[in-house]
Amino acid sequence: MPQDPSDEVKLLRSDSATARPGGRTARTGQAVMDATIAELSEVGYAALRIESVAERAGVNKTTIYRRWGDKAGLVATAFIERQGEASPPVDTGDLREDLLSFLREVRRAFDSPWITALIRETGPRSPGDGGIHEVLDKIWPARFALSRGIFAKGIARGDLPPEADPDFLVEAAAGPLYFRWLFLGRELTDDFLTRTADLVLRGAAGPQVATEPSGADGA
Amino acid sequence: MPQDPSDEVKLLRSDSATARPGGRTARTGQAVMDATIAELSEVGYAALRIESVAERAGVNKTTIYRRWGDKAGLVATAFIERQGEASPPVDTGDLREDLLSFLREVRRAFDSPWITALIRETGPRSPGDGGIHEVLDKIWPARFALSRGIFAKGIARGDLPPEADPDFLVEAAAGPLYFRWLFLGRELTDDFLTRTADLVLRGAAGPQVATEPSGADGA
Repeated sequence: MPQDPSDEVKLLRSDSATARPGGRTARTGQAVMDATIAELSEVGYAALRIESVAERAGVNKTTIYRRWGDKAGLVATAFIERQGEASPPVDTGDLREDLLSFLREVRRAFDSPWITALIRETGPRSPGDGGIHEVLDKIWPARFALSRGIFAKGIARGDLPPEADPDFLVEAAAGPLYFRWLFLGRELTDDFLTRTADLVLRGAAGPQVATEPSGADGA
Repeated sequence: MPQDPSDEVKLLRSDSATARPGGRTARTGQAVMDATIAELSEVGYAALRIESVAERAGVNKTTIYRRWGDKAGLVATAFIERQGEASPPVDTGDLREDLLSFLREVRRAFDSPWITALIRETGPRSPGDGGIHEVLDKIWPARFALSRGIFAKGIARGDLPPEADPDFLVEAAAGPLYFRWLFLGRELTDDFLTRTADLVLRGAAGPQVATEPSGADGA
């Protein structure tokens, strides 16, 4: 279940929990993350082989299987750790500023070859999707955990009504960027990001009509 | 330019303008549209061959090239005509009802094998995208022409402020459905559609911050 927080925690900690900073385990982890991202950029997810990652990182492939379980776990961990480092959760104390930073982070991700490699392979769920959704289902809970915090803090500060649904608002804010970039092929201008943020914030401040949490019908 | 209305009109009329209803030209057009959709469902866009469509429709391939120009023009015409027939623009006179009907239409499209075939092949724009974006760039202006009417009528009725941007609102409303279905793999429940429509309408009714029309930076 993508929404299971224990999943998320396990993934977020799969590297650091076993690593002393600067220690051998940590160095191996960094080398494998680097190799995973390099392989993703070059061959994408479906064609990615753990053997190639191991060779590139100079480690034994059994080390990778033991520590990250499988290809989906390895790639999801690389995504979560590297994206997390690239864009730590923002907390300016201002809801609109935090939301704009999140939308700029989404836009930045579209410039990243290893992330676009994952997106390129993402299609409607089907036996032919190369298992890419196994990865997405591990990635989203962790990404949502960071992003929903923007709205949760807004609710805590009283900038949003208590009944606002942070998960739903993440989808409402990020969705138009994915749609515009991937399907319309139109530029994600600062203006578009600002208008999207302002529409979502105005919409969120109104009376909420939620009858179930956004994640309740999660895959 | 996807937003060029003349494109749209040419595409929308490419069949009907040359056909007397019930006449031979019209029958040929229907046979070719049927064959195009059947081929799309089976092999997708990149692998679709005009020869196979012609064979399936029992027409000469030169007829197809003469009438629809190329593969992109043929597929875009099939999409626009068949989707248009499947879901004529709604006009209940009620903005919220019209928007909900539009979102239900988007959800229905995701059940259509020949439409999901197009979506499956859609990736970030690149030389490797099989020219799928040539088709999308022909399809969107026609789809937006129908969808933006929902909001344009709302503005005309005074249900939305005159400065509301119908194109932007189509992206804001449809984007979350594409994102949820394609990337999150979560069900597009009636509740989700209702919440999306209500958020967009609340957001649209507030002060608009647009500094440029949504299409102005179009690809």
